Amino acid sequence: MQNFEFLNPTRIIFGEGREGQVGEWTAKYGKKVLLHYGGGSIKKSGLYDKIVESLKSSNVDFIELGGVQPNPRLALAQRGIELARAEKVDFVLAVGGGSTIDSAKAISIGVPYSGNVWDFYAGKAQAQAALPIGVVLTIPAAGSESSNSSVITNEDGMLKYGLNTDVFVPKFAILNPELTFTLPAYQTAAGATDMLAHVMERYFTNTTNVDLSDKLCEALMKSITKNAPNAIAEPENYDARAEVMWCGTLAHNNLVGMGRVGDWASHAIEHELSALFDIAHGAGLAIIFPAWMKYVYKHDIQRFCQFAVNVFGVEHNFAYPEKSALEGIERLELFFKKIGMPTHLTEANLPDVEANIRLMAKKAASRGSLGQFVKLDAEAIEKIYHIAL
Amino acid sequence: MQNFEFLNPTRIIFGEGREGQVGEWTAKYGKKVLLHYGGGSIKKSGLYDKIVESLKSSNVDFIELGGVQPNPRLALAQRGIELARAEKVDFVLAVGGGSTIDSAKAISIGVPYSGNVWDFYAGKAQAQAALPIGVVLTIPAAGSESSNSSVITNEDGMLKYGLNTDVFVPKFAILNPELTFTLPAYQTAAGATDMLAHVMERYFTNTTNVDLSDKLCEALMKSITKNAPNAIAEPENYDARAEVMWCGTLAHNNLVGMGRVGDWASHAIEHELSALFDIAHGAGLAIIFPAWMKYVYKHDIQRFCQFAVNVFGVEHNFAYPEKSALEGIERLELFFKKIGMPTHLTEANLPDVEANIRLMAKKAASRGSLGQFVKLDAEAIEKIYHIAL
Repeated sequence: MQNFEFLNPTRIIFGEGREGQVGEWTAKYGKKVLLHYGGGSIKKSGLYDKIVESLKSSNVDFIELGGVQPNPRLALAQRGIELARAEKVDFVLAVGGGSTIDSAKAISIGVPYSGNVWDFYAGKAQAQAALPIGVVLTIPAAGSESSNSSVITNEDGMLKYGLNTDVFVPKFAILNPELTFTLPAYQTAAGATDMLAHVMERYFTNTTNVDLSDKLCEALMKSITKNAPNAIAEPENYDARAEVMWCGTLAHNNLVGMGRVGDWASHAIEHELSALFDIAHGAGLAIIFPAWMKYVYKHDIQRFCQFAVNVFGVEHNFAYPEKSALEGIERLELFFKKIGMPTHLTEANLPDVEANIRLMAKKAASRGSLGQFVKLDAEAIEKIYHIAL
Repeated sequence: MQNFEFLNPTRIIFGEGREGQVGEWTAKYGKKVLLHYGGGSIKKSGLYDKIVESLKSSNVDFIELGGVQPNPRLALAQRGIELARAEKVDFVLAVGGGSTIDSAKAISIGVPYSGNVWDFYAGKAQAQAALPIGVVLTIPAAGSESSNSSVITNEDGMLKYGLNTDVFVPKFAILNPELTFTLPAYQTAAGATDMLAHVMERYFTNTTNVDLSDKLCEALMKSITKNAPNAIAEPENYDARAEVMWCGTLAHNNLVGMGRVGDWASHAIEHELSALFDIAHGAGLAIIFPAWMKYVYKHDIQRFCQFAVNVFGVEHNFAYPEKSALEGIERLELFFKKIGMPTHLTEANLPDVEANIRLMAKKAASRGSLGQFVKLDAEAIEKIYHIAL
């Protein structure tokens, strides 16, 4: 186990009807709020009205900016920053999923910064301050509600870069599983895939003696693979929705990654895909992760056996461990198929994807090799895209 | 799953040599520190000198109060309160295990309170403020380093009462597994028992649909039962010590209890034992928990089967589930025996314990029935003490 520091200061407010407390919690941090959201779904569902009512009843003033897209764009964040400055906003309230929260995080660090907020994502500057953020979560997936991560796509070159900084970790996150009842099956599945990927990126490590965090990872992976199909089959099953939602937060608040080095190559390889093709991040991960596994599993067959046995209940083949390892990868693919995710690029309707493989591999490796479990250069990444075809 | 709120604001600073940063972290919160510790072990081990050096190099002024005993006493906490007031202390640094931290917590809420600090423990007043606390942990057991709990024994009547309040949750906790290398086998085992008990108190619940938190509980229980024997067999095995130490924190920062009602009867039944006989809390729990289980298991045989199968790898007896349930309890007792804990009162050298059973049961039930999984009145508690004989 490596030395580590763990602090997760986001207050999780979980359960039925909790969005009615958003005004009360917001009022502890701000007086003038930027209410940030995506398309019109929160207006159709009535959530928007509930939030406005709660803010008003706590005497919190607000302006709003909707229109966040999946793979949130830099331009909208920049508009939010200008708006927040002009209106003297002192708190950003994100109502939505990971894209909305990531966009809110970009706004929160952009407001007190004199340069272009993209500087932080491009690694040209370090964020020192941020407006406080609150979240009402509607899509369990990215874990952004209590993580220190934000991923933004710069339309200029379709660069999709992630940023990690503690300054924009949300102050509170309201998680009501009922708000996810209307989430379509595909988005539910893509969300479950994303949270599973967050755990797998940490699970496949070269750090030894990580027993407890291995077991915590396995607990999350088992719970996601058990409950996500139930949430899809019965969209209004509160308990299945609740398990999935809580899994999504714990999969990415870094608890299960403590004391170990994560990999994160699959995320970066997927980012090129969704930057270019605007495929849902989760669907992209369902395609890339099994391909990555097939490329790297020989690096540590025993770890892949542990994954197969402890997560998918595969009976260990002591004589031929490689068979167990491969069966684990197959079971993961079967899980993705079961929840309706594509597991190959050819299933995902991406025009000319094969012709773009070299370009994506080159972009993915443009800031250096990817991955910690196995280091991947552009050539290796290209092979992984080919396995994924 | 029930509605819940989760926030754990303690910064965990984990790993080799981390105690050298104590001055730096303390200086962020205070200028005049009360350094609180137990017997002389931190002086013998050289830890005291390291801490003093770190405080001095960060220009933090300090006074000290040692002498905390296991089952920490009210009188010492009261002395600490007077001392802290007289010396205008603004930060309490606990160096030790759960007893020292619990005593520091009592001091931290006593200083800004005009009445007797026992009022909080007796339920006569609610703590509103506390001096900030930091911890250098030397005994992994109680989880007090990031919990909202403190247990104090009032010598007047040997009343041992627990208090839960968020105001005294430590700001930071330094956890260096090397500091536990010198911990004797008995104390290591008692600590492991305590942390296992913290998880079991949450695991045995009537709340349904708690899949993820069940699995997180099982992860912790498996890791404790796997690593504690290794830490005892090889006291300087860093990895075993590290797993045990991190388990102790996560067992009681309430993460694994979210969304479910815990039981806590066994803790209360044990408290009467250790208040009267000054037996180590962990050793008392190793005696009481199996007795409690034998008394209550018929209330939910399936949950006891899940415990047996998922924690101890018992093969489930589908035809006679009760056999699996009882085998799980037996395996727990065997684990306690393996690490050198007593599992019966008669093994623990407690003079006249049998003659005191009625008194202890009466005291345990004096503030109402115990437990949530099964409600226990004085008569039921008496039966459990008898099973434990």
